[in-house]
Amino acid sequence: MKPIEWLGNRLKIIDQTQLPGKLAFVELGDYTEVVAAIKVLKVRGAPAIGVAAAYGIALGAQNIKADNKAKFLSQLDKILLAFSAARPTAVNLFRAIDRMKKVAAAADVTAIKQALIDEAKAIHAEEEAAQERLSRLGAELIKDGFTVLTHCNTGSLATAGYGTALGVIKAAHKQGKKIEVIATETRPLLQGARLTAWELMQDNIPVTLITDSMAGYFMSRGKVNCVIVGADRIAANGDTANKIGTYTLAVLAKENDVPFYVAAPTSTIDLSLSSGDQIPIEERNPEEVTTIGGVSVAPKGVVAANPAFDVTPHKYITAIITEKGVFRKPYLGSLKNLLRG
Amino acid sequence: MKPIEWLGNRLKIIDQTQLPGKLAFVELGDYTEVVAAIKVLKVRGAPAIGVAAAYGIALGAQNIKADNKAKFLSQLDKILLAFSAARPTAVNLFRAIDRMKKVAAAADVTAIKQALIDEAKAIHAEEEAAQERLSRLGAELIKDGFTVLTHCNTGSLATAGYGTALGVIKAAHKQGKKIEVIATETRPLLQGARLTAWELMQDNIPVTLITDSMAGYFMSRGKVNCVIVGADRIAANGDTANKIGTYTLAVLAKENDVPFYVAAPTSTIDLSLSSGDQIPIEERNPEEVTTIGGVSVAPKGVVAANPAFDVTPHKYITAIITEKGVFRKPYLGSLKNLLRG
Repeated sequence: MKPIEWLGNRLKIIDQTQLPGKLAFVELGDYTEVVAAIKVLKVRGAPAIGVAAAYGIALGAQNIKADNKAKFLSQLDKILLAFSAARPTAVNLFRAIDRMKKVAAAADVTAIKQALIDEAKAIHAEEEAAQERLSRLGAELIKDGFTVLTHCNTGSLATAGYGTALGVIKAAHKQGKKIEVIATETRPLLQGARLTAWELMQDNIPVTLITDSMAGYFMSRGKVNCVIVGADRIAANGDTANKIGTYTLAVLAKENDVPFYVAAPTSTIDLSLSSGDQIPIEERNPEEVTTIGGVSVAPKGVVAANPAFDVTPHKYITAIITEKGVFRKPYLGSLKNLLRG
Repeated sequence: MKPIEWLGNRLKIIDQTQLPGKLAFVELGDYTEVVAAIKVLKVRGAPAIGVAAAYGIALGAQNIKADNKAKFLSQLDKILLAFSAARPTAVNLFRAIDRMKKVAAAADVTAIKQALIDEAKAIHAEEEAAQERLSRLGAELIKDGFTVLTHCNTGSLATAGYGTALGVIKAAHKQGKKIEVIATETRPLLQGARLTAWELMQDNIPVTLITDSMAGYFMSRGKVNCVIVGADRIAANGDTANKIGTYTLAVLAKENDVPFYVAAPTSTIDLSLSSGDQIPIEERNPEEVTTIGGVSVAPKGVVAANPAFDVTPHKYITAIITEKGVFRKPYLGSLKNLLRG
C-alpha cells in the first residue's frame, strides 16, 4: 500500500476521508488540489503532510509556464505560500517547504523543476528510512505480552512510510512479540476508529477499539502496559503537540504509572521553539464536532469548540523515540545535540 | 417539561434517544415496555431510572389479574426481577425496587395496588425535592463568572426533576450568576451533545460543546473553574461510579488544581459497598462504539469495548453535594452519619 505516490506529472494519494468504508485512490494534477487535500485531511499525519506538500510544490513548479527565472520564482513563491497556509501545527509541513525553497536556487528554470522533484523524492525517502529506524529502536521498549494504547493514526497512512507510533507497534509485532493494541477512536474525526483499527486489522495485530473517554478506565485497571503516540511538533524542551486528547492520555499515564512514549522522526522537532506554549494550535470547523459522518449529533445552532491538537508538557513524556535514538529527560540538551549531529 | 409523568394507567416518558432531533413523548401501558425503555436508554440517568422503575412496577401491578394475594405476589416478584435485571450500575434502580417490594406487604391485592402507586409517586416527589435542595446547596460553590465543565446529562431528562449536576448549574444561573458551561459530548451515546447542550440552550445558559478528548486542553489552559458531575452509585467511602470518562475528568482536574464536585441525591449512596471496587460496571453493546446514529464509523468486524461507567476514587472528589449537605473528605464517616440521620 502506497499512501502517497509520485507519478511523474501527478500525485496519487489515498483519500483517507473515505476509509474504512472505501480504499479510494485519487490523482491530483494541480498543486491547488494537493493544498485542498491537506486542508480537508484526505492526506493527514505530520510526516505525510510534509511529503505530500513537497510533491505538491514540485507538481506546481512543473506547471509554471514562465521560463524567465524571476517570474518563475515569483509564481513558485505563491505556491509555497499556499502550502504554508494549509495547516498550522505540524512542523513537517514547514520543514518540507523550507527545503523545497532552498532548492529553488538552482541554475535555470528547467534545472529548478528537476531539483524540486528530486528534493521531494529525497524528503519522502528520508522519511521512510527514519520511520523504519525509529520503529525498530522503539520496538525495544515494547515487551512480549504488552498491551499498548495508542491515539489517532500514525501508521502508513499518516506518514507515507512505515509509521511512527504505529510503526513501533508493527515492528514489535514483526519481531514475534505477542502484543495487543487498544486504539482510541479519536474524536472528532475518528482517525483511530477509521484508520488505525483498519491498518492494524490489515496487519493481523489484535486491536480493541475504545472511545477516548475509556482510556482512563483501562489504565486504572492495569490493562495498559504503555502508551505510544506520534507528534505534530516537538519543541526544544520536549513539549509535544499532537492530536487533541494526547495531553489527557499523558496525565492518565502518569497517574497510573504507565510509561508514555512519543515516536517521531527528527523532522518533527522544532528547535526554534523553546517550549510548547509557542506551538500554534489549529482550530478547525466546529461542524466536525457537531456532526459525525454527515449526521448531526447536537442541537442546531449549538456553539462548539474544535482545537485539533494539544500540547503535552515534557514532564509527562517517558521517552521520545527518533531515528537517531531514544531520548529521556531532560530533553533540552539531547534534542539540540541530536539535530546538530 | 415533564420527562416522566404518571397518567393513572400508563407511564408517559420523553424518548431521550430521539433528542435533540425530536422531542417525542411515548406512553407505556405495560411494565415490559418500561423495562425495555430503561434498557435501550429511552429513560436514562440514575434518578430517572429509579423513578421510572417505581412507576413501571406500579403499572405492572395494576395489570396483574390474580386476586389471590399469594399468586399476586408471585407475579409481582417476576416484575421486580425484570426491573432489577434492566441495568446494573445505578443504585437508584435497586433502591426503588426495594421500596416497592416493602410496600407489597399491605393487606389485600387492591390495597397493595394502590400502595404501589402511592409509593412510586412518593419516590418521584422525594427525588424532586432532593434535587431542588441539593441544587440550591451546590449553587453556593459556583461563583459569579465561573466556567463549569460537566459530563454526560444530569438535568431534568436524567432525573425526572430539577437535575443533579445540571440542577446545580441551573440554580447558580437562576441566582443571577453569570456562568458558562463546557459540556463534553460524552461518547459513545452523546448524552452531552444531544441532551445537555439541548437542555442548557432551552434555559438560555451559555454552553460550549466539546469532544471528551478536549477537556484536558481547556483545563490546562485555565479555562475551567470547576467540574461538576452526577453519579450512578456512591460507595460508603465516597468512591463514585458515573458515566465512562468521569474518572479521566477527575484526574485532569486534580492535575490542574480544578475543584471536582459530585452532585447526587442521597438515594444514590450505597452504604452496603465499602468501596467503588465493588460497584458493578455495565458492559453495553460494542455497536454503540462502532456506530454513531446508525452510521458505521469503524471497520467491519473490529473488536470494541464498551464499559458504560467508571469509578472515580474518593481522593479525587473535592466535595459531594447532596440534599442533606455538602460533604468533604473523609467521606466514610460523614456519609454513614448522613444516611442514619
